[in-house]
Amino acid sequence: MNKRLLLAGLAFALGAGVAQTALAQAKPETLVKQRQAAMTLQGKYFGPMAGMAQGKVPYNADTVAMNAAFLDALSRMPWDGFAESTKDTTVKTAALPAIWSEPAKFKEAQENFQNAVQALVKVSRGGDEAAQKAAIGGVGKTCGGCHQNFREKQ
Amino acid sequence: MNKRLLLAGLAFALGAGVAQTALAQAKPETLVKQRQAAMTLQGKYFGPMAGMAQGKVPYNADTVAMNAAFLDALSRMPWDGFAESTKDTTVKTAALPAIWSEPAKFKEAQENFQNAVQALVKVSRGGDEAAQKAAIGGVGKTCGGCHQNFREKQ
Repeated sequence: MNKRLLLAGLAFALGAGVAQTALAQAKPETLVKQRQAAMTLQGKYFGPMAGMAQGKVPYNADTVAMNAAFLDALSRMPWDGFAESTKDTTVKTAALPAIWSEPAKFKEAQENFQNAVQALVKVSRGGDEAAQKAAIGGVGKTCGGCHQNFREKQ
Repeated sequence: MNKRLLLAGLAFALGAGVAQTALAQAKPETLVKQRQAAMTLQGKYFGPMAGMAQGKVPYNADTVAMNAAFLDALSRMPWDGFAESTKDTTVKTAALPAIWSEPAKFKEAQENFQNAVQALVKVSRGGDEAAQKAAIGGVGKTCGGCHQNFREKQ
């Protein structure tokens, strides 16, 4: 089966700007679990790239291409999990109240991250190591931009 | 920024058959957390489609296209988390020993799932509701194929 052909479906579905229809009323604890899962996987695929950008892990162009592509999908997944219904959940979460009291700022932080990921995806295919490392650094900054204001200090 | 253009990166990176390089020695508990995160998100995006196929949720072609695309990426993520090092982890997991005693069978179950997801991605853009629902059912069967033999009964 031609994987390349089929995977073009992601470009189609997401590129068309399809809006996710409202989730059925998922339980707050389910939403928290799902958004945390997306963050966990962002860490899985961003971590090795951050290590490369910092010179702690040997640079590998194939890993950058694949991890950037995964991050592209993952960067879109957590946000609908920050529903109002999760504001007062008893589940352990590091989400700060600012998420709901400053929604425009939270949205902006998400967009900064997604734009930085897209910039990384764009250079991830070129094999230009310096440009890729710079773009990885750019993504890292936008992770921090959100964690700084909207997540409890770890 | 042109999302469609950038998202083509996933098709490129994955379509080229890029092999994920070995993960740095992640802790067993981290690997378990990451693989469970991938399964959680597979559930998030497969659940609504399963509901549509079963007639419990109104059919929505846009949701099918997007969720299938997400599932395409997610269907590739859990497997490197089933490393030998996680076999005796004390973290709570439903993974059965057969994962490590019958690796060929486990691999086959993964591939059946990935192939079914790819078949779904392929029809997810066509707007043919009946074909999509059939493909969703096909994916559901392969979820069960793995859970039947390799996961503790829930």
